[in-house]
Amino acid sequence: MGNCLVAQSGGPTAVINASLAGVVRANQLNPIYDHVYGGIHGIEGVLEEKLYDLTNLSGAEIELLRQTPSSALGTCRYKLKRDNPADFERLLTIMDKNDIDVMFYIGGNDSMDTVDALSEYAAAHNSKKRFVGIPKTVDNDLVPVDHCPGFPSAAKLACLVTHATRLDYDAYTRPEVFVLETMGRDAGWLAASCCLTGDVDLLVLPEVDFDREKFLAQVQKKMDEVGSCYIVVSEGAHYADGTYISAGDTANDGFAHAVLGGAAQTLKQMIIDAGIAPRGVVQDLSRAARSSNFAQSKIDVTEAYELGMSAHMRSANPEFTAQVVGVKRGNARKMECSGGSCQMIESYNAEFFAGPASEFANYVKAFPTDWILPDYQGITEDALEYFRPLVEGEPAIIYGKDGMPATIEPFNKR
Amino acid sequence: MGNCLVAQSGGPTAVINASLAGVVRANQLNPIYDHVYGGIHGIEGVLEEKLYDLTNLSGAEIELLRQTPSSALGTCRYKLKRDNPADFERLLTIMDKNDIDVMFYIGGNDSMDTVDALSEYAAAHNSKKRFVGIPKTVDNDLVPVDHCPGFPSAAKLACLVTHATRLDYDAYTRPEVFVLETMGRDAGWLAASCCLTGDVDLLVLPEVDFDREKFLAQVQKKMDEVGSCYIVVSEGAHYADGTYISAGDTANDGFAHAVLGGAAQTLKQMIIDAGIAPRGVVQDLSRAARSSNFAQSKIDVTEAYELGMSAHMRSANPEFTAQVVGVKRGNARKMECSGGSCQMIESYNAEFFAGPASEFANYVKAFPTDWILPDYQGITEDALEYFRPLVEGEPAIIYGKDGMPATIEPFNKR
Repeated sequence: MGNCLVAQSGGPTAVINASLAGVVRANQLNPIYDHVYGGIHGIEGVLEEKLYDLTNLSGAEIELLRQTPSSALGTCRYKLKRDNPADFERLLTIMDKNDIDVMFYIGGNDSMDTVDALSEYAAAHNSKKRFVGIPKTVDNDLVPVDHCPGFPSAAKLACLVTHATRLDYDAYTRPEVFVLETMGRDAGWLAASCCLTGDVDLLVLPEVDFDREKFLAQVQKKMDEVGSCYIVVSEGAHYADGTYISAGDTANDGFAHAVLGGAAQTLKQMIIDAGIAPRGVVQDLSRAARSSNFAQSKIDVTEAYELGMSAHMRSANPEFTAQVVGVKRGNARKMECSGGSCQMIESYNAEFFAGPASEFANYVKAFPTDWILPDYQGITEDALEYFRPLVEGEPAIIYGKDGMPATIEPFNKR
Repeated sequence: MGNCLVAQSGGPTAVINASLAGVVRANQLNPIYDHVYGGIHGIEGVLEEKLYDLTNLSGAEIELLRQTPSSALGTCRYKLKRDNPADFERLLTIMDKNDIDVMFYIGGNDSMDTVDALSEYAAAHNSKKRFVGIPKTVDNDLVPVDHCPGFPSAAKLACLVTHATRLDYDAYTRPEVFVLETMGRDAGWLAASCCLTGDVDLLVLPEVDFDREKFLAQVQKKMDEVGSCYIVVSEGAHYADGTYISAGDTANDGFAHAVLGGAAQTLKQMIIDAGIAPRGVVQDLSRAARSSNFAQSKIDVTEAYELGMSAHMRSANPEFTAQVVGVKRGNARKMECSGGSCQMIESYNAEFFAGPASEFANYVKAFPTDWILPDYQGITEDALEYFRPLVEGEPAIIYGKDGMPATIEPFNKR
């Protein structure tokens, strides 16, 4: 038997390690690979042959890995380019040298493109090496899936912070606005999810070109009517000409995406300058929201783990390559009891599937415009229905030192 | 029997409502007051006779109130001034009119000064009205207590975010610094507590005059040695001449304290400008940390509730006025079991006391300088020992709609 390789790429999430744990555990349940190697720092470390043998992690270590946020193997922003065959050759050579048949890559759109490109290259060069994608992204912008692992936990934390900061804001009498900024480069899923708590007055998404006057009129209206205005803005919100609201740094991060941040600060200043409110409070969720271990969604942890298992199990088929595993939303009946009587009701159910990596790669699934209410008023009931099951439920947590959730020591730091 | 009044003041915390719940519940267990009135928006609303009758909250409502963050009565930044007797007279008149014998004021240093001033004024004007303080502040800077309700929960969330963002930061290879900013106007307790997780490389506190060159030398050293540097800075950190590190707004908030923010951003830019790292990530905890309901410390919720009860119970004594209740740290033995054997070990134990409001008012308890390691290296083992028991333990949470912790509708919004 040969070996397999797992690596992580792109921004960390709360549950990307749960997918890693799923691959490792699946191979313990059915050892179709002699070794499960972890690639340190994604493709970047793999190209330098930095591998960590995960095959025999104990059950307790796998449990810890499953609840540890961020990327325990380390991540990278390095992208394999189709016009740079040297990297492709080098990767196949390293796989050969280490008897690796299959590589699992856990990442977002760009990583799924890498899976596609590598599979294509291998096929064109008579190599039997196979490549399988496992999705993750807090942005929730992958096309063929219902949602991406990592998003539900990020949404849950965003909702928790929204409600807590709304209560904090509501304790005051002085006229001021509150602006919460969430991640979301091209899609407004995370910002939109904040509406679940019923606390958001105005929502600014990348899916609707920003209209300064229209927005300010709505802020004015809220301040006139109730004396307060709680705003959520996605970091990627922009004007019709594509200019970001953000006043922040626009340097590149290596993938030719602008580095965003500062949309909330800009909106606050815009409102003050317009004389609508004399003060404003800004809360930027950025890093605190995307890979926490104190607000994981139970469904998210479970599905991320199971997607890791699913990828491993499907890879037993020697034809399985250039594929990505994902979750679609099905309905199933569950028992709900109240007041002494129980009934079966329709409820959320995850259905696992695999599809061509090309369908996942390089497309961005925007938040549906027919789920967006006009005039920055938030989202529709259909959208709320979509979000609801994702954030529910608390995973059982193993606590460690000083009452903090226990985490595993990252493999890239060993 | 007469009535009592409870009001909240200053910045909200995670557990200021637990103290309110404690007062209300104590009066249900022993109804020494006919009515427990809540003052809406602190002194500000009381002066306008905005009272909410809390006497008969149900047990379930009290449970919800106990876990609801922020100030359910609303808060204010209005300060009664000793040289403005009109407000004092107006307050006594309103208390008379509503047959209120005792006012409980939950707040920080300034509110404890209000308790002192009101008691003094009443005594000087032959009034039997009494005033009792219940402390709260995430800053933890009140003098005679071991710690202030609100601080342990804020510290717990700060620790959770520190560890999660450290793991996120550690996933990358690129050279950059991470700077986390916490609240802490004059005292560095909250920033210092982040060291509990073992993740902090450099700590910048208001208790040590900031030395730019010394600090940058330490950042350089860390970057040279390990290629990363995780920094925590308190918003109130300043240079020897008193100038805040913060590049932020210095407008007044009504209490003549500067409005801070931006210390982390300033440090990041300072490091980039010095050529030590080409990039930096900033996370500002501000509002997200101080009044959450998703990271409460069990000891904090319990003690805040019990302090509310203690204040009510002690107020049965007709001589009890101009006093504040608080917690000192005692030791007690608790059973600890491991590997099949159990033993009694010394552990944290809260001891309740009451002391003159004047001792609580207008003093600031700085983080002890002998607990601070030189060269921004963090804090001593004694300091860690102090923090440890405060953040441990998870309160049982009642979950509501969409799997979020349930909260009570604020009384100031009804």
